[in-house]
Amino acid sequence: MTAVVALGGNALMRPGERGTAAEQLANLRRAVAALEPLLDDDGLVITHGNGPQVGNELIRQERAADEAPPLPLWLAVAQTQAEIGALIAAELRPAVDRDVACVLTHVRVAPDDPAFDRPTKPIGPFYSSAQAEQLQRERGWTMNEDANRGYRRVVPSPEPLDVIELPAVRSLVAAGAIVIACGGGGIPVVRRGGRLTGIDAVIDKDRASALLARGLGSDRLVILTEVPALYADFGTPDQREVRELSTHDAEHLLPSLAEGSMRPKVAAGVAFGRETLITNFEALGDALAGRAGTRIVGGVTGA
Amino acid sequence: MTAVVALGGNALMRPGERGTAAEQLANLRRAVAALEPLLDDDGLVITHGNGPQVGNELIRQERAADEAPPLPLWLAVAQTQAEIGALIAAELRPAVDRDVACVLTHVRVAPDDPAFDRPTKPIGPFYSSAQAEQLQRERGWTMNEDANRGYRRVVPSPEPLDVIELPAVRSLVAAGAIVIACGGGGIPVVRRGGRLTGIDAVIDKDRASALLARGLGSDRLVILTEVPALYADFGTPDQREVRELSTHDAEHLLPSLAEGSMRPKVAAGVAFGRETLITNFEALGDALAGRAGTRIVGGVTGA
Repeated sequence: MTAVVALGGNALMRPGERGTAAEQLANLRRAVAALEPLLDDDGLVITHGNGPQVGNELIRQERAADEAPPLPLWLAVAQTQAEIGALIAAELRPAVDRDVACVLTHVRVAPDDPAFDRPTKPIGPFYSSAQAEQLQRERGWTMNEDANRGYRRVVPSPEPLDVIELPAVRSLVAAGAIVIACGGGGIPVVRRGGRLTGIDAVIDKDRASALLARGLGSDRLVILTEVPALYADFGTPDQREVRELSTHDAEHLLPSLAEGSMRPKVAAGVAFGRETLITNFEALGDALAGRAGTRIVGGVTGA
Repeated sequence: MTAVVALGGNALMRPGERGTAAEQLANLRRAVAALEPLLDDDGLVITHGNGPQVGNELIRQERAADEAPPLPLWLAVAQTQAEIGALIAAELRPAVDRDVACVLTHVRVAPDDPAFDRPTKPIGPFYSSAQAEQLQRERGWTMNEDANRGYRRVVPSPEPLDVIELPAVRSLVAAGAIVIACGGGGIPVVRRGGRLTGIDAVIDKDRASALLARGLGSDRLVILTEVPALYADFGTPDQREVRELSTHDAEHLLPSLAEGSMRPKVAAGVAFGRETLITNFEALGDALAGRAGTRIVGGVTGA
């Protein structure tokens, strides 16, 4: 059995935390303990989000801008791959008998992806109206007003097309290592004149994980999130966990799902096309045994 | 022929530059052009320093400390591996027909290395006397006065003992990739109770490169620096480039060399024990042909 396991934000940071190294290590210790049933899988690749970490890094870049030049977003994504990769490796190594390696991962997107005309993903710190206007003018950022908290930069979230380091991940998996890859959805790059050029965007980490799992020919994609499963009739007296969905039914369900929440996870399962398990750490053991979580399976029939 | 090539700081940043992504990419474009004679080597691993980049990152961490928690130095080193790895990959890929992969690299040091009792390596921003006193008290940092520029944190520079990701680098080289590894000398870790724990130190990148080259069984270590070669009788009318040294003679020369400059490079050649070439980008072509640079060769006879 080979698997790609996508860690959600709660594997690294819990409500009220600021994201110190010590907090993230303590959370990852619990996460690794929950992953125990998967750690013996022949091929195991771990992916992860980076929302709060890249937010912190962008705050750092801005606050020091007069003294240390701010790096572009795509390099801040790279930085979080290393930060989080080193933290995951620190907690994973004592739990396994094999090598752990983190590969810096670039993911190619199309320069004409419609997402570039419609930036939707808020990132980084909040700004005042005057600051927002200045950043829009001086750096060409798109700024959106976010409820009552101020203005925030929004960036495109284009569709991932290619995991550039797929051969490297495949070689390391074949050599028996657990690989950490595709952090934060990967460093977004576009192909321009024979080059892969970094571009300021944020790729959905579940979609990137599905692309990686497909490229590796993995048997299973496990998406770990806050809730134990997808719910049908959510918020009504009939609310119940969805135990199994065909990819066909999952695809039809997509428009009814929350855009920033379950939709990209179910879409990732549809894109992967093989067994996809959506659950949380607490329910993972039961979900692997078919008693919890939501399983998306290939074919047209489902529960 | 297999080689480990260690890039010096000038491959990434030139005097007067601040280290923007655009500056670093432009410098790397020139560096990659100079590396052309080595790009077809069967096994090629590129290592690099991170002095100015980790300095910039530490400034960012400090300046945003009230809003985004500062990460420990070992994670800042990790961040610079990703920043610089992504920049090198961007310029290297268009110049080669094979995969390029950057592996996050940890390097083990001994917790009782005498360097921990005598921190010598200055890093990060300059502080006032009052700030320095506070940082010493609150964070346990060792602060040294640096000429007239203020106070600066100094950290230990312990001897590298193990490249943790050596098997991963070896697998990727065997698969034909050019590997970027050991950036900034590697993320320093110590073994404690079955764990590899990050520790705040900076490992000399040339020493780490020698350890990696030895572990990989490389034929050659190329150390690229500011000057074309090591000089004998430097600053006298007899000043001349040293063309070749045996490891035996190189070892005897060590105490006479400048600690922060040529000494670690020659020490790296001695530690590697096979052919080591110390030169700069301009002289690299001639140095590979034996007409420039300083070559350290195994055995006891030298020029």
